[in-house]
Amino acid sequence: MKSFLQPESVAVIGASSDPRKGGYAIVSNLKEKFSERLYPVNPGSREVCGLPCFRDVTDLPEAVELAIIFVPSESVPDVLEGCASKGIRRVMIQSAGFAETGKRGLELQNRCKEIAEKANMRLWGPNCMGIVNGCSGMVASFIRTDAWQGRLRCGDVSLIVQSGMLSAGFLVQIMNEGYFGVSKACSIGNRCDVNECDLLEYFRDDPETAVVAMYLESVSDAARFRKAVTALNKPVLLLKGGTTSRGAEAARSHTASLAQDSALAEGFFRQIGIHRAFDFLELADLTKAVTLWKGKTGGKRIGVVTFSGASATVATDHLIQQGMEVPFLSEQCKSALARIFPSWAEIENPVDLWPAIERTGRMSAYRTALEMIIDDPCVDAIFVHAYVDSTILAPLSEALEVLQRTGKAAALWVIGDASAIKMLRTRVEAMQIPLFTEIVRAVRAISLLAG
Amino acid sequence: MKSFLQPESVAVIGASSDPRKGGYAIVSNLKEKFSERLYPVNPGSREVCGLPCFRDVTDLPEAVELAIIFVPSESVPDVLEGCASKGIRRVMIQSAGFAETGKRGLELQNRCKEIAEKANMRLWGPNCMGIVNGCSGMVASFIRTDAWQGRLRCGDVSLIVQSGMLSAGFLVQIMNEGYFGVSKACSIGNRCDVNECDLLEYFRDDPETAVVAMYLESVSDAARFRKAVTALNKPVLLLKGGTTSRGAEAARSHTASLAQDSALAEGFFRQIGIHRAFDFLELADLTKAVTLWKGKTGGKRIGVVTFSGASATVATDHLIQQGMEVPFLSEQCKSALARIFPSWAEIENPVDLWPAIERTGRMSAYRTALEMIIDDPCVDAIFVHAYVDSTILAPLSEALEVLQRTGKAAALWVIGDASAIKMLRTRVEAMQIPLFTEIVRAVRAISLLAG
Repeated sequence: MKSFLQPESVAVIGASSDPRKGGYAIVSNLKEKFSERLYPVNPGSREVCGLPCFRDVTDLPEAVELAIIFVPSESVPDVLEGCASKGIRRVMIQSAGFAETGKRGLELQNRCKEIAEKANMRLWGPNCMGIVNGCSGMVASFIRTDAWQGRLRCGDVSLIVQSGMLSAGFLVQIMNEGYFGVSKACSIGNRCDVNECDLLEYFRDDPETAVVAMYLESVSDAARFRKAVTALNKPVLLLKGGTTSRGAEAARSHTASLAQDSALAEGFFRQIGIHRAFDFLELADLTKAVTLWKGKTGGKRIGVVTFSGASATVATDHLIQQGMEVPFLSEQCKSALARIFPSWAEIENPVDLWPAIERTGRMSAYRTALEMIIDDPCVDAIFVHAYVDSTILAPLSEALEVLQRTGKAAALWVIGDASAIKMLRTRVEAMQIPLFTEIVRAVRAISLLAG
Repeated sequence: MKSFLQPESVAVIGASSDPRKGGYAIVSNLKEKFSERLYPVNPGSREVCGLPCFRDVTDLPEAVELAIIFVPSESVPDVLEGCASKGIRRVMIQSAGFAETGKRGLELQNRCKEIAEKANMRLWGPNCMGIVNGCSGMVASFIRTDAWQGRLRCGDVSLIVQSGMLSAGFLVQIMNEGYFGVSKACSIGNRCDVNECDLLEYFRDDPETAVVAMYLESVSDAARFRKAVTALNKPVLLLKGGTTSRGAEAARSHTASLAQDSALAEGFFRQIGIHRAFDFLELADLTKAVTLWKGKTGGKRIGVVTFSGASATVATDHLIQQGMEVPFLSEQCKSALARIFPSWAEIENPVDLWPAIERTGRMSAYRTALEMIIDDPCVDAIFVHAYVDSTILAPLSEALEVLQRTGKAAALWVIGDASAIKMLRTRVEAMQIPLFTEIVRAVRAISLLAG
């Protein structure tokens, strides 16, 4: 896998000198990383992105570590033969038009597979977006250069997605919104050879990967998958496409994935300890939480701190429905809290801070309440709700600093002004507190730690 | 109710000259609307917000149409006696510290009720945020002036919320993010007299109200509620707090609402045709969709148009789980679509446009596909998914214009760049196409029209 993820030399077959084409973007993206040993190949061009262009793969000055193919599907087998005769052993087919399009495409894909097997060559794809390595800066993909340039953030989350276009859009959103830093983002498409198991096995010993998030439409090999996930011993999150039979039909024409029994799959994933997400932003939010909470602990018993009785009520409803508990606080904690509340206030979990905020101010109310609650032995993890605008931003994030003193995980659900929320996000996530704008996300995230 | 919602003269008892206090904000907010007949009352001040301040309610030059009380709860009964002797018939108590705090508070609240009944006076609250009238510009609430000034947008959605603080934050978010324009936002708190039924009955004949969205922790009077909702004959959306027993306990200490049987309540709400939401942003998103879709029709059979196989798959899963269908397209529609797709592409619902986008460009692919699908008799409503950034914004919104030609409802789920999404939102929502960033919201919204 290393030759795919961190190659020393790359050829791009189907390179284009037209900046609107994917064959241009692949070269342009790789050029950001490679100052040499990057070879565009196209019989019709003399130069691509300022690099000399080769007529044919057999004309290359070396047997590159990785060849990327982006030519119409019908021409791919010939190109593969060329790669084989050149002695190239790692090939990524980014072109579409294979098994996902029906019988003829499947035959084409099988022909490619045969050629590769004979030549002892590993194939990645076809019908995929390629690889984005957030730490090395290698972007081996037709994603537009301006969509990622200056936005890549190295992190310890690796992604495996069985999708082409969406993974590009999804990745751009993750980078733009600062969900988490990315180690390797791998789009595996029809996975006629390299599949999620190869990558899971590689990530086990990859020090740059601490968490794996996946979008899959089926599992290639259940036994090997189980073994790989177990051996990985790192958190795995999964969005599974095609959980309904109609959705599975769509998946078939997307990545030629065969439907699997949904109920069976649910049990299987649960058994091997995989966290499930059910849409793309949920996958991003839960992955963010898991990666931020490294070293933190959780549990079923959640302490809830809000500024509003309505949000206390609705948050409690969601936590209970998710299988959590909202326990009564210890007497010690309650009498400590009484110091910041007016005498008429009833103090209990969920804690509606409003009377305390009116009495002692927002910053002092939040800080004192959180200080007391993190030490309460009745509470495993903390759910905080706050309203934020530009005037509240600074005192609120200062108050939340007390959460750094505890090993208990905390999730923050906020409402308010969008730009203030964005600034608060940066501050609190540096303190290992994931921020959510959706209550259901905060609740699901915190429930992941309850096992 | 009209005296509460559109009074000609108002007194604020507990007005404050300290800009940090709620008693200042109430006067300052009302001053934006009232150039005369607005009377601050506070024995300790001579002037509030540049208005002469009265020592006592009995000193006022007239029996105002509405008195707003914002003094500590213990003093409220005395103030009410003063209002009664002055001949004031509408009083709103915004102070907290009543039934929501326990037995003593309940006694206090009951005393207020008795005084009001004797004086033939209607009481609003206590423990509430008051009223924001988005069309007349009257803000009778302690919400900070800078939180709403310049942001009020008149619309035809009226809100009834049984909550104080959150309704303020929620309202600010609705206004900031431009979810929908607001007719009357009513925070009814402990509703010791005026309740949701009074307002529902009033909204029936209110030409400024076309849709009602509510947050309630219990229903005051089920028989009257049923009658009011049925007579209203306008769409009603409801977020119910306290659907779990632990959540209901929290609700009790919030607005003194008694728990009601959850399963019973579900059946009741369904029976009278109320749309349910389960959190605050969902309530906002669904309300937005309902108000935008006036005059549009829907149904179970959803046409799905995306640029990605993965989102086609996951969207289909969500639609099916929500009870919708993703039907096969008519032969006529498919052969029309074939014109924009490469020959190898399999065309079916959900429609993955990517091959067509590569062939004819994004704008032409979306426009042509939507044109064909809205005319397909097999499809009741349309679910569109798009990626957007600054370069795609203009062609995409132009392509979506074809949806204006049909009476079928369309929902748009987008991913991409946040600022481009914000601009796209304004454009498409002017075309009656609600935009969602959460796939589950788009799916739930479109399912509301399937009855």
